[in-house]
Amino acid sequence: VSSRTSDTGLEMDAAQETSSRGVRERRFNLDRAGRVIPGLVWTPEDAPAPLPLVLIGHGASGSKREPYVVAVARRFVRHHGFAAVAIDGPIHGDRRADGGASPDLAFLEFGQLWRDDPTMTDQMVEDWRAVLDAVRDLGDVGAGPLGWWGLSMGTIIGLPVVAAEPRIQAAVLGLMGIVGPTKKRIEADARGLGCPVLLLQQWDDELFARQSTLDLFDAIGSKEKQLHANPGRHTDVPPDEFEATTAFLARHLRP
Amino acid sequence: VSSRTSDTGLEMDAAQETSSRGVRERRFNLDRAGRVIPGLVWTPEDAPAPLPLVLIGHGASGSKREPYVVAVARRFVRHHGFAAVAIDGPIHGDRRADGGASPDLAFLEFGQLWRDDPTMTDQMVEDWRAVLDAVRDLGDVGAGPLGWWGLSMGTIIGLPVVAAEPRIQAAVLGLMGIVGPTKKRIEADARGLGCPVLLLQQWDDELFARQSTLDLFDAIGSKEKQLHANPGRHTDVPPDEFEATTAFLARHLRP
Repeated sequence: VSSRTSDTGLEMDAAQETSSRGVRERRFNLDRAGRVIPGLVWTPEDAPAPLPLVLIGHGASGSKREPYVVAVARRFVRHHGFAAVAIDGPIHGDRRADGGASPDLAFLEFGQLWRDDPTMTDQMVEDWRAVLDAVRDLGDVGAGPLGWWGLSMGTIIGLPVVAAEPRIQAAVLGLMGIVGPTKKRIEADARGLGCPVLLLQQWDDELFARQSTLDLFDAIGSKEKQLHANPGRHTDVPPDEFEATTAFLARHLRP
Repeated sequence: VSSRTSDTGLEMDAAQETSSRGVRERRFNLDRAGRVIPGLVWTPEDAPAPLPLVLIGHGASGSKREPYVVAVARRFVRHHGFAAVAIDGPIHGDRRADGGASPDLAFLEFGQLWRDDPTMTDQMVEDWRAVLDAVRDLGDVGAGPLGWWGLSMGTIIGLPVVAAEPRIQAAVLGLMGIVGPTKKRIEADARGLGCPVLLLQQWDDELFARQSTLDLFDAIGSKEKQLHANPGRHTDVPPDEFEATTAFLARHLRP
């Protein structure tokens, strides 16, 4: 495998670099003291840095290559000229020995990890901060406005990331509530938020009780926050909302 | 006062006709068996009928000339080439002897009327249907796609209008809940809805308890429905939401 390592430790896999319809996609690994973080970064083929950058957290069972993750990332690049980056979640994608070939198993194991390992969230926050620093050091990305996009596990992990990272200026969160083993922390993180937040809710979500998501919206401390609720189960988010979420971040991150 | 009456009974006040920045505004009265309905109709200065038409219901204390009503109407005309029509609510605007000069009194009286007069809603539904027929008969409007836009009293009256009128293809409602004297009817009307609905909620609404609006959203029978909640009191709807509501109707009514 042909690869090169940037000054900031991003090891780019040149063999996996692709470019299509104006979007350049690069596969990287970031070595954080022996913990390897696999990721993808999407950039416009031709746009001057610094670019607004959106951090995308995927949902449990998926990966950084999840079709909707790639679609959202490409949308930010093509429609708005932003950069986007996604990494594999804990025990997901290329962090697994099976390379993400067992989505149901990853889902199950994530549930156990969330319940049993209180360090999981902090590890992921540190992974994201390391990735953020490294990606912003890329010459064609730079230190532009910063946003978060993540639903479900992308909020379980994203809420703490946004709470911990003052550089994030706007966030799309959702399909999650104040539930589970880290309930108190979720509530505290929510109260600590200050940036504009769009929170998505599936009205008939079978994984997160309706009230738990309303409680999360209520707890969010940001002066500017929006709840968008739609009928249907956890994964039934309507296509319109994907557009609404990208438009929301585009509005807040436009330089 | 110079006036002319159309075949369908719309008495247009030519002296009050204005045109600015591509928007023609006409003041009309419609006589429905002695009950005079005062209204305004906005159309593009130059667009071929049939046009999509949005019926706009104003909030209690206001009138068909309420600044946000005019702004929403003009937005539909200028940005989307639609027509729009607003009429004065019960005991509001030009239906009052004071011509709408006492908004607080109108608000108070509407509260009493809503509580005490079970015929109020049906009267307003009939007023709206008569106006709808007459406006669609205007040569420069015609029978195009049809939508409803109304918050607060514009939903108290609008929900029954949308429930009764199968020609309405999409509706913006909000700032209301399942409360008050007509609770059962509100719920029944909501369950009977079939068209796409965008429901706005102010999270800290001092007039409608949070749960009552969530109950209304829950009851809406439409397969396609969206709740948008924002922090703040009853009248603190953020400007973004006005854009979202017009975009919502534009998407559903575009011919």
